[in-house]
Amino acid sequence: MRPGAVDVDLGPGASVAVLDVGGTEIKSSVLDGGGRLCPVVHSPTPRGADVVDRVVDAVAAHVELARASHPDLGAVGLVVPGIVDPERGRAVFSENLGWRDVPFPDLVAARTLLPVGFGHDVATAGRAELELGAALGARDAAVIIVGTGIAAASFVDGSPLLAHGWAGELGHSVVDPAGPECVCGARGCLEAIASTAAIARRYAAATGTTVPGSREVLALAEAGDPAARGVWDGAVAALAAGIRQLAAITSPELVVLGGGLSRAGDALFAPLAQALARTVPPHRVPVLRPAAIGAYAGLVGAALLGREASR
Amino acid sequence: MRPGAVDVDLGPGASVAVLDVGGTEIKSSVLDGGGRLCPVVHSPTPRGADVVDRVVDAVAAHVELARASHPDLGAVGLVVPGIVDPERGRAVFSENLGWRDVPFPDLVAARTLLPVGFGHDVATAGRAELELGAALGARDAAVIIVGTGIAAASFVDGSPLLAHGWAGELGHSVVDPAGPECVCGARGCLEAIASTAAIARRYAAATGTTVPGSREVLALAEAGDPAARGVWDGAVAALAAGIRQLAAITSPELVVLGGGLSRAGDALFAPLAQALARTVPPHRVPVLRPAAIGAYAGLVGAALLGREASR
Repeated sequence: MRPGAVDVDLGPGASVAVLDVGGTEIKSSVLDGGGRLCPVVHSPTPRGADVVDRVVDAVAAHVELARASHPDLGAVGLVVPGIVDPERGRAVFSENLGWRDVPFPDLVAARTLLPVGFGHDVATAGRAELELGAALGARDAAVIIVGTGIAAASFVDGSPLLAHGWAGELGHSVVDPAGPECVCGARGCLEAIASTAAIARRYAAATGTTVPGSREVLALAEAGDPAARGVWDGAVAALAAGIRQLAAITSPELVVLGGGLSRAGDALFAPLAQALARTVPPHRVPVLRPAAIGAYAGLVGAALLGREASR
Repeated sequence: MRPGAVDVDLGPGASVAVLDVGGTEIKSSVLDGGGRLCPVVHSPTPRGADVVDRVVDAVAAHVELARASHPDLGAVGLVVPGIVDPERGRAVFSENLGWRDVPFPDLVAARTLLPVGFGHDVATAGRAELELGAALGARDAAVIIVGTGIAAASFVDGSPLLAHGWAGELGHSVVDPAGPECVCGARGCLEAIASTAAIARRYAAATGTTVPGSREVLALAEAGDPAARGVWDGAVAALAAGIRQLAAITSPELVVLGGGLSRAGDALFAPLAQALARTVPPHRVPVLRPAAIGAYAGLVGAALLGREASR
């Protein structure tokens, strides 16, 4: 596997410029005509006033870079964060990036003169895991991305849950009404306890010692630091509680965990699987699996969307 | 509207014997060739050893009664509680009635020599509300039945969530991990706080005074009894918390409340709508509506299933 590339094979078809617009950076690549992804290009996501124009400019620049190496580009695949309604072709809302009801596929198509496949970053990453990755062949599955935020892509009876882009905001489901305050205004949201940012923040709040991230909290917990152990175990319990809510409402047979926290490996998966076995019944207990496609699943999902748009 | 009958009109088609097997009684009716439901017949649900054989006997007896008045019966529509997989034609599990993996549609078809449409009581009642009742035309809706238990039927992007019968067990989703113990073994399930049985039980536990049901607790609350007010307000808050979980995971635009508790009317709907407006954001805040079909929605759903099976 080439550095920065993603080891997937979508088979022959159109060449597609694929883009994943994140809160921090825009990642892009090219799905070549053979169905492989080229090395990934990163650039900072524009912020502030005129964010929509500046993001469209940046996306267009990534597409022209892709076209320089692949003049036969047949489509663009584009995913963005926030609330996204792919059916209406609208980025409904992003608190983080500050936009509302933006017709990105129309804007990007007008600039690039290419058809644009468009979707939500996590929903599309989930689809990539379902069609090509850790959830291959599952009918009822949830793909939960635990990074600085938490979001889920749910598939029930083989179909993705969209609800005009509003489904899957698991990070802002309350798992403990007596828990810490969340930026959303509620108390005890899953994201306020179990995101990588929350784990670092809660350790700092408990001890007065700032740590760079959740990885350091885990290392401290494994070295015997009781405050770190409490924060880590609390995050695992909160994730189990969130998954139990899914079990009650959509009942996935399989839960795939991706995002930064999932790189903790057994330190996360072993206690979480134990907690699920204990707490999820009488609901169906899901099998737990790490994401297979990983950090570039959004780009792979964008490739699936772009291939569809090229037809 | 005739007493014991249901005021729906499914239009001309096959005559169907419709049955709703509940934990306490079996209700049946006939959907006539004009699409109207005849008066409803009630009999106790058999229990104990041989429950499956005895329920099949009772169902066959109801069907023969229906055939006596409607010799042209073209199908049976049958709904049962518990975990139900309509695709496999199996009643997967009922803790209450004590059965597991029962092929009811095959058993009833063999006895009655009629095609059998088969489904879950609450899922089917939800479908009746979506196709004919309070959720008519909604794409993303949840129909929550709050009686002695609590269950939900969810529709996302216009499709029901099945998950092989495991979706919709909202009553056993935890809304407060510090809450009361539930029969399922968890603490703070919605059903342990907000079902009609829980409301009566929690009032008795708080005061030592036994009451027949949630209706009496509401009357006491309205008369100024602070313990009754606390129990009632706690139930409303728990329902709001359960609906917020739905908002995060499936995001209904509309929530329909049925079952015994919904007959409390404004005393339930007014404070619950206020609580949703306050607590559900940043998720989409659903509109709240009482069920339109009511106590016989399971029979109306069975009629829809029976009409399909007759084709």
